Amino acid sequence: MTLHPEERLLALLRDTADPWEVAGRARVPFPVLVGMLRDLEERGLVRSRPGRLTLTPAGRKHAPRTVALDSRALAALKRRYLRLVAQRPHATDAYDQGHLTVDSLMGRLREMARFGDLVEGARFAIMGDDDLLSIALALTGAPAQIAVFEIDERLTAFIADLAERHSLPIEVHTHDLRKALPARHRGAYDVFVCDPSETRAGLRMFVGRGLSALAPGPGSVGYFGVTLVESDYEKWRELQAWLTAQPVVLSAVIPEQGFYDNWPTQLEEARAYGHPAFTRAARAPWYRSALWRLETLAGFEPRNPRPLPGDPIADEHYFAIASKERR
Amino acid sequence: MTLHPEERLLALLRDTADPWEVAGRARVPFPVLVGMLRDLEERGLVRSRPGRLTLTPAGRKHAPRTVALDSRALAALKRRYLRLVAQRPHATDAYDQGHLTVDSLMGRLREMARFGDLVEGARFAIMGDDDLLSIALALTGAPAQIAVFEIDERLTAFIADLAERHSLPIEVHTHDLRKALPARHRGAYDVFVCDPSETRAGLRMFVGRGLSALAPGPGSVGYFGVTLVESDYEKWRELQAWLTAQPVVLSAVIPEQGFYDNWPTQLEEARAYGHPAFTRAARAPWYRSALWRLETLAGFEPRNPRPLPGDPIADEHYFAIASKERR
Repeated sequence: MTLHPEERLLALLRDTADPWEVAGRARVPFPVLVGMLRDLEERGLVRSRPGRLTLTPAGRKHAPRTVALDSRALAALKRRYLRLVAQRPHATDAYDQGHLTVDSLMGRLREMARFGDLVEGARFAIMGDDDLLSIALALTGAPAQIAVFEIDERLTAFIADLAERHSLPIEVHTHDLRKALPARHRGAYDVFVCDPSETRAGLRMFVGRGLSALAPGPGSVGYFGVTLVESDYEKWRELQAWLTAQPVVLSAVIPEQGFYDNWPTQLEEARAYGHPAFTRAARAPWYRSALWRLETLAGFEPRNPRPLPGDPIADEHYFAIASKERR
Repeated sequence: MTLHPEERLLALLRDTADPWEVAGRARVPFPVLVGMLRDLEERGLVRSRPGRLTLTPAGRKHAPRTVALDSRALAALKRRYLRLVAQRPHATDAYDQGHLTVDSLMGRLREMARFGDLVEGARFAIMGDDDLLSIALALTGAPAQIAVFEIDERLTAFIADLAERHSLPIEVHTHDLRKALPARHRGAYDVFVCDPSETRAGLRMFVGRGLSALAPGPGSVGYFGVTLVESDYEKWRELQAWLTAQPVVLSAVIPEQGFYDNWPTQLEEARAYGHPAFTRAARAPWYRSALWRLETLAGFEPRNPRPLPGDPIADEHYFAIASKERR
């Protein structure tokens, strides 16, 4: 399974026969699209008539199926997810945790579905999974394989247990992402997802490990959340410059896509700043991140990132990390 | 009027007294926010109590007002806009035109409002205005000044006439963007907006001219649409690498934000490719762009961009441009 333009185009043709809609959604320039269509017609996979594009029976066999998530499907998914993860371990600041609200997690799946990334048979690598995204992803039925790399044994045990009891295609690796992925995972995935620690070293480490897991060549995908509560726009710019110096494009930066549940130590962390306004607990989720989506381009090669100096997962909580970096 | 973090924070405090909501929406790291709040308190502009942040009377005087656009306000704006632009000139392929649907234009204003960029007193520069965004922006009541730089005299005459009859704060300059902006416009604006031609030279020219209009230092903003119908992701990557090599960050890349009205010559242009499916007129808008938002950072200086070789506004229609670039 790959996510290259041709497979994406075939998948799109399961969805619509309207050539103009295909041209709008194919995410390749019009002349390239016409060339791809001609090629698929010659290979007997696509048939075209005036105002109409359809898959042939052979085309239907080749075309990847993608999962579409309308609000109804998402609501059902949310109920199943909540039932499964009811006994999840609490977030711990030992690993800079804090997880997405369930609605934001569902919103993230909806974005993946909109991009056509929930392709049946796709291989997902998740770098750190305190969101338990692996469970939600598995419930969509799309992924052939979901590999979780997570340092917290409470989480890896919890996910492994759920995966076994419910026959979910998840494999769990208790792994410290400060270390490179084992060689057999390098370049072995179509999509990575992570929610990085936001020290400079942490961002490079999480996103870099994610990139090291992606298949070489164009069309692989990465999703991750970046905040402006811990990072600033200068740090965003550095990350963007680092990424786009590689054969990697930012295909989306969606502001405020993810909101996070308030975590138990939050008030204590804020109080450390001694500001009088921040002395009462938050009534609603306020900590939020933008969802970034990257796509690899021709020439992409999975490499292990060079580590940056500093401890990417500091022992201190994030408020302290942020204040330390400022000085 | 500037759009620096401090003004944005004061504007935000008009909207909410909840410190956590402020922390989530301020778009600066938490420790920076606390420092800014302390400073504003010392200057008598902000008062803080447990769980509450408010503007003092002096603070209310200093705090910029921003326009909020809920669906009701947007619907009213849309009616007024449609009434005013009913007699607009038709799109012409002489200048690679084609304009946003009115709903997408309203959606673009909503994004600007969400970002807090519809600040009363702000100065907007619009590089090419076949969308007649200048009219819609003026109707929000926010901008103190809107400068339109547009090559098509049919449009500049139409906009100037509307501006005069309805006392809108729009000044219109018939200007070929292949030439630098007149010196007095360099660095004179808070926000630029454009919908670039998507040849490589065109992207650099439109976005580069936009940057040359922005005030030096951090906090100025640019909005522009980029498609995947004419551009490909490699071109996106090049533009992203070029931008983030400067003190400029991509604060948003919102896929499929803008849909464009079908234009009269579309079918003829598509037919030039000789593909049988594209021989009937599109029934609905299909041509779409992602909305990019950039923000300038510390050290930003408005400069005139070095022109790239090639004619950024080719005489041919965009399908032909796209096919020419591919070869």
